[in-house]
Amino acid sequence: MPGGSMADARYDPDNIFAKILRGEIPCHRVYEDAHTLAFMDVMPQGEGHTLVIPKAPARGLLDAEPESLSALMTSVQTVARAVKAAFRAEGLTLFQFNEPAGGQTVFHLHVHIIPRREGVPLKRHEGGMADNAILAEHAARIRAALEGQG
Amino acid sequence: MPGGSMADARYDPDNIFAKILRGEIPCHRVYEDAHTLAFMDVMPQGEGHTLVIPKAPARGLLDAEPESLSALMTSVQTVARAVKAAFRAEGLTLFQFNEPAGGQTVFHLHVHIIPRREGVPLKRHEGGMADNAILAEHAARIRAALEGQG
Repeated sequence: MPGGSMADARYDPDNIFAKILRGEIPCHRVYEDAHTLAFMDVMPQGEGHTLVIPKAPARGLLDAEPESLSALMTSVQTVARAVKAAFRAEGLTLFQFNEPAGGQTVFHLHVHIIPRREGVPLKRHEGGMADNAILAEHAARIRAALEGQG
Repeated sequence: MPGGSMADARYDPDNIFAKILRGEIPCHRVYEDAHTLAFMDVMPQGEGHTLVIPKAPARGLLDAEPESLSALMTSVQTVARAVKAAFRAEGLTLFQFNEPAGGQTVFHLHVHIIPRREGVPLKRHEGGMADNAILAEHAARIRAALEGQG
């Protein structure tokens, strides 16, 4: 990796997504396979805001192994289709943030998938924690859409 | 693909990125391989704003072939490292928009890579066309960083 501030940042195995992967803290799971996990963002910028992460440790885009990145994007596509169907979205906005200057707040590589409708602006990410019952219902809706993809 | 508004949208071979791929209109190229092309965004949201696209036709994330998506993300990672180095970025923000409701304005799958520095907000995408000489210099800087990755 070329020099610069990001090259110095290490993976912290105590980040919140690493704890979710180890089952130490719960999540509203929507999808899981050998290499990836998807779950609801607890501070959604829109209804149905879902995160997809690789299981392999990576702080961000730049330190991910190509195989892990490839598996991640395959899952992103699968989950995105289900998110779109579950929320009858007219569009999808994806974000991937690296380092605090890039918008990252949890330092395990993740892709945001946000279903969109015309005229509904994104909410701020710091807009507060969503209700757990609502997130559980949203996760169930996406899981049902995934089963429908067969 | 599950039903919904996006499933009905077709790939238009006359979109501006298809024309760039066919060499019918110019771009400030930074990287090219068998499956992907990267070039400067002409309406940058920040200095060094770069786009990476697959050569295979796809309107967005949902209709891309998995192999094309995998090749795209490998190039995104390669180009992102060079963009970071070229602009001494403290962070990177990536966007991928699908359909107008999701923020998409050119209907060929593309990933935005924007180098970020603390305290420098993103500009609006519609903020106007950048100066060609500046974009050419930025593209040259990223190409030099790519050569440095060897």
